[in-house]
Amino acid sequence: MVPIGIIRTPFSKLADMPIQPKGAADAEGRIIIDERFSEGLQDLEGFSHIYLLYKFHRAPRIELTVIPFMDDLPRGVFATRSPLRPNHIGLSIVELIGRDGNELRVKGVDILDNTPLLDIKPYIERFDRVEQSRSGWMTAGDEEVRNKRSDKRFT
Amino acid sequence: MVPIGIIRTPFSKLADMPIQPKGAADAEGRIIIDERFSEGLQDLEGFSHIYLLYKFHRAPRIELTVIPFMDDLPRGVFATRSPLRPNHIGLSIVELIGRDGNELRVKGVDILDNTPLLDIKPYIERFDRVEQSRSGWMTAGDEEVRNKRSDKRFT
Repeated sequence: MVPIGIIRTPFSKLADMPIQPKGAADAEGRIIIDERFSEGLQDLEGFSHIYLLYKFHRAPRIELTVIPFMDDLPRGVFATRSPLRPNHIGLSIVELIGRDGNELRVKGVDILDNTPLLDIKPYIERFDRVEQSRSGWMTAGDEEVRNKRSDKRFT
Repeated sequence: MVPIGIIRTPFSKLADMPIQPKGAADAEGRIIIDERFSEGLQDLEGFSHIYLLYKFHRAPRIELTVIPFMDDLPRGVFATRSPLRPNHIGLSIVELIGRDGNELRVKGVDILDNTPLLDIKPYIERFDRVEQSRSGWMTAGDEEVRNKRSDKRFT
């Protein structure tokens, strides 16, 4: 795996961050794609939302059981979005605002500054929309998600 | 990156596969998680849908410009879901039917048999639902997505 670029955001510390894109709706970031991959960005501007796959580069270890930010009980790491997962891959859906050459402007970044980017995929409503779902332990409301900030549990 | 398990599906050849979970709604698969990571599956059954991140292990090369299955024009690879992307990481949202120890039963697999699994994340409606979006070049209807099958262009 090689980084295809770097994610620049307003968040330089692991604590006190928004915990998901929905908690960072107004946070803007820039993605700088390595020049040798910039050809692959063609046509991306047609999409309003994109998936970012990235490396949790500051995750210091693996923990198979964690207490998520939005819960009080220990949960299996694969039932959470904790960075302390095997392979340390992060996934965020962000809003694509614009592209200037090999640079993207995005909104709703819940990502640490200088995070290495592994992949970008378009959010395609016809493929990705889930009409009805059940979200297990996650019972928090929209407002709680918007206001929650990270602490030091995963550092 | 180490595989955390293996994905077993009815699809053993790259051609003639469904091209997305929506095209494979009835296709069932099994995910066998490596015993040393099975503790991390706790609480996953509470979620009706999960993200699978996996290795496109049969992708033979990288192509920065591709013609997607659902289109006739060349597009930047990051504006498509083609396997020929840098880092060869695949992403599918599948329905979780059940768990038996370190084995998951899933539905809607558009994935090649024996694919190495890199990560599982819960689909959390409160985090992941996109209310309004624009899907660029992708103009195909639901029925076309359901019926489309892969050919040999990415082999």
